[in-house]
Amino acid sequence: MAAATSAYDALLAHCRETFLLGSTSALLSWDQETYMPKGAGDVRSQQLALLAKLAHERATDPRVGEWLATCEAERGHAADSDHAANVRGLRRDYERATKLPSKLVTELAETESKAQQHWAEARARSNFRRFQPWLERMVALQQQKADCLKKPGQSRWDALADLYEPGMNAADLRTLFAPLRQRLVGLRQRLARGKTPDESFARVEIEEPKQEAFVRAVVTAMGFDFARGRIDRSAHPFCTGTGGDVRLTTRFHKDNVQDALGSTMHEGGHGLYEQGLEPQHLGTPLGEAVSLGIHESQSRLWENHVGRSAAFWQWCWPIAQQHLGAACTGHTPESVSCASNVVQPSLIRVEADEATYDLHVMIRFEIEQALIDGDLGVGNLPDRWNALYREYLGVAVPDDKHGCLQDVHWSCGLFGYFPTYTLGNLYAAQFAAAADKALGGLGPLLAAGQFATLREWLRRHVHVHGRRYTPAELCQRVTGTPLSSEPFLAYLDQKLSAVYGL
Amino acid sequence: MAAATSAYDALLAHCRETFLLGSTSALLSWDQETYMPKGAGDVRSQQLALLAKLAHERATDPRVGEWLATCEAERGHAADSDHAANVRGLRRDYERATKLPSKLVTELAETESKAQQHWAEARARSNFRRFQPWLERMVALQQQKADCLKKPGQSRWDALADLYEPGMNAADLRTLFAPLRQRLVGLRQRLARGKTPDESFARVEIEEPKQEAFVRAVVTAMGFDFARGRIDRSAHPFCTGTGGDVRLTTRFHKDNVQDALGSTMHEGGHGLYEQGLEPQHLGTPLGEAVSLGIHESQSRLWENHVGRSAAFWQWCWPIAQQHLGAACTGHTPESVSCASNVVQPSLIRVEADEATYDLHVMIRFEIEQALIDGDLGVGNLPDRWNALYREYLGVAVPDDKHGCLQDVHWSCGLFGYFPTYTLGNLYAAQFAAAADKALGGLGPLLAAGQFATLREWLRRHVHVHGRRYTPAELCQRVTGTPLSSEPFLAYLDQKLSAVYGL
Repeated sequence: MAAATSAYDALLAHCRETFLLGSTSALLSWDQETYMPKGAGDVRSQQLALLAKLAHERATDPRVGEWLATCEAERGHAADSDHAANVRGLRRDYERATKLPSKLVTELAETESKAQQHWAEARARSNFRRFQPWLERMVALQQQKADCLKKPGQSRWDALADLYEPGMNAADLRTLFAPLRQRLVGLRQRLARGKTPDESFARVEIEEPKQEAFVRAVVTAMGFDFARGRIDRSAHPFCTGTGGDVRLTTRFHKDNVQDALGSTMHEGGHGLYEQGLEPQHLGTPLGEAVSLGIHESQSRLWENHVGRSAAFWQWCWPIAQQHLGAACTGHTPESVSCASNVVQPSLIRVEADEATYDLHVMIRFEIEQALIDGDLGVGNLPDRWNALYREYLGVAVPDDKHGCLQDVHWSCGLFGYFPTYTLGNLYAAQFAAAADKALGGLGPLLAAGQFATLREWLRRHVHVHGRRYTPAELCQRVTGTPLSSEPFLAYLDQKLSAVYGL
Repeated sequence: MAAATSAYDALLAHCRETFLLGSTSALLSWDQETYMPKGAGDVRSQQLALLAKLAHERATDPRVGEWLATCEAERGHAADSDHAANVRGLRRDYERATKLPSKLVTELAETESKAQQHWAEARARSNFRRFQPWLERMVALQQQKADCLKKPGQSRWDALADLYEPGMNAADLRTLFAPLRQRLVGLRQRLARGKTPDESFARVEIEEPKQEAFVRAVVTAMGFDFARGRIDRSAHPFCTGTGGDVRLTTRFHKDNVQDALGSTMHEGGHGLYEQGLEPQHLGTPLGEAVSLGIHESQSRLWENHVGRSAAFWQWCWPIAQQHLGAACTGHTPESVSCASNVVQPSLIRVEADEATYDLHVMIRFEIEQALIDGDLGVGNLPDRWNALYREYLGVAVPDDKHGCLQDVHWSCGLFGYFPTYTLGNLYAAQFAAAADKALGGLGPLLAAGQFATLREWLRRHVHVHGRRYTPAELCQRVTGTPLSSEPFLAYLDQKLSAVYGL
């Protein structure tokens, strides 16, 4: 027994130290996107590659396999005990890590850092051809990675997707997505018969410092702890870090305060998840988010179920008036909340409304499967992209910047990641419905600015568990039912019908 | 011959990779001082300790010893060839690293990061007692470090000082400092008979954004390359990083634009040195600054010989008027340059004028020798500090914040470092005199804003050499004579006599 306990302790000490390398890499990547001077790009790629190599060496240390075997042989640990959950999580990580050769890991890290820099340049010039060789290299590396990871009979894409959402596969997603697509299209057609809300608030010009003060006030009210995190600017908003060091980024457009608010509440939702993990588990599976789908449920819940609700705007209106001043003149909380819910097929995923957002995701889902399976050459990506935008959303893509260069993901090597955005929307709706029921209605809480009640409910039911349960188990525990798109469609239908006066 | 070449290549590849770890640590430290949320402090200390351990493991890799031995056995490399200089530098680094046990290196890194955070808190509360236990721990660790490093007959302090200024020792410094102190005191007495310049410009209230735009314009004109560096804010200005990623920090006080300008030009001078190193030598001794004294010569040259000169203010005045606006009313370039040269014994080293600055350094030099040799208990530091300030500068220290808590150095484990500031002043004056002679007078160049001429002269004569020569050799090459305090005293006497109308 003493030996077994000591194997578990050794295992945890080891993974906590590996976490230090991982969190160092995360900070370097954050810096790359926020403050790093351009001239540092080459060295940064090398630093990240070296850290990835060192982290991979640690993660594949044969002693980890021995400690795991010892821990697994131990009896008397309930399936949801700390011990069992950590051992299960570390086993999964170890199996995954040992399948990847060190050389590939280093090459991936260096290519990710470089490709991201080239993507940013290509995007700025709206020129896919500049990025194409980097994406070709990245796809080739991801194919190699998938070949290393995939189990017998598993597709390459499924092997990659499982990294982000344990248990997710393309077949299940297609089953979920096909009817969802149909019903979203149906909803849009129905809304076309209603009255489109006045969108002018979203177009008012507001200076950046005012917008910044406003979104900071909101994210502070949400409960984001600035003693354990911060907000900066980046081209593409993101959240990174964990525990005492959670870093959000956002962005500002002079004529779109809704974008800044939405991005900040979105990343703030991610940040609350990271800050809501149990500090004593930092650096171990129990101190990590369970999946990207669940992570995204937290960001979308705050961005959409809170931030685009009529109740929220009742609370928010005086705050908006205080910070945005004259920009609020002629608007009301009702008009502004309606303005934040206009449904309009568009080109950019992160700016999409809730009724069309998932169509953007489905397009990427189709394309990345084709890229990874080799059915689509990288050179044909813009054409395929543009064709699918016509088919799914009925919009014409004017250039690469507003087309296939809009997202950072593929340049960072994130293939198999996009569907987690839609899973996040579905989880968010299902969690919000459960919270609404448990807390006696979210509306009055939001209208009163009592965000702590919702935040604590999420913390207790989702955050604190880390990787104790699978995403599916967690969903069942939190909501009493498996994941379904019904709560999402019901929520959208109810909210948008009201907004469109139907 | 093939084998020997390959040992050299292997050695350089190895040290370039070690550089990646070192530069990663530097970025983490920069972040700690600029953007890190408070809650990240513990993990940051652990990250830095781990990176220090990994870097130390690499630096003490026995293969390094073997490669060095092979390289040293090779013949035919001139003493100032790349090969010889890199091998010499790496031999020095290897000898030093192998003397330090890994455990001590890790403990030092973690304690430095933590002690710095505790210092910042103690300083904010002006309470030395809060910092005392951390300083005690730090002194004990530094004593251990010195005991590991010191050669037979060498003192602890000398062993530490040699880390920062190769060849520097306390005996030589005392020989240099004693007459310097006397003559600086004499100069001050002489100035007392002159007319103190109007200092009011230094006290005008100017909003921070205006100050920032102004100092950025100046540092840009100096030639600092923002594509390979940046400026941020920190409590204590510093410069870190190298090559394509040089990070300066500065600070702003509402009523002291001179402080912001001086700090920024100072750190900008450090930054120009780092940006002036040869890119192809990045990560090897030839791509590193030779010593802290030489580094400081670059910062002080720009801060004082340029920034506090009448010629500079002739060029700078329109820039100041453009950015500072009404604050300039009633002042002239002459009055402002005189205002930047008022001699007045004061409490804070970094705010001291050029005629009293070195007295601050001498006080620290005395105290840190006593701390490291065990002649002074840490608990008695404030008393000793305050007594020496009375004796050397004739000022009464009102509290710890304006006394022994003012500098970050000891909390970061930098013992043996302070005298390099005075060496920097002496080198700066000697280099400036040489540049003045070589370039046909610095005055006209500065008045015309032709900073590139001076910068390129410094780059060619100082920066590009990296660690090719010792500081003493470099001084001899650049100026034709060994280091002396005469050029410094002559420069001060001439400038201050004019300022004081003597």
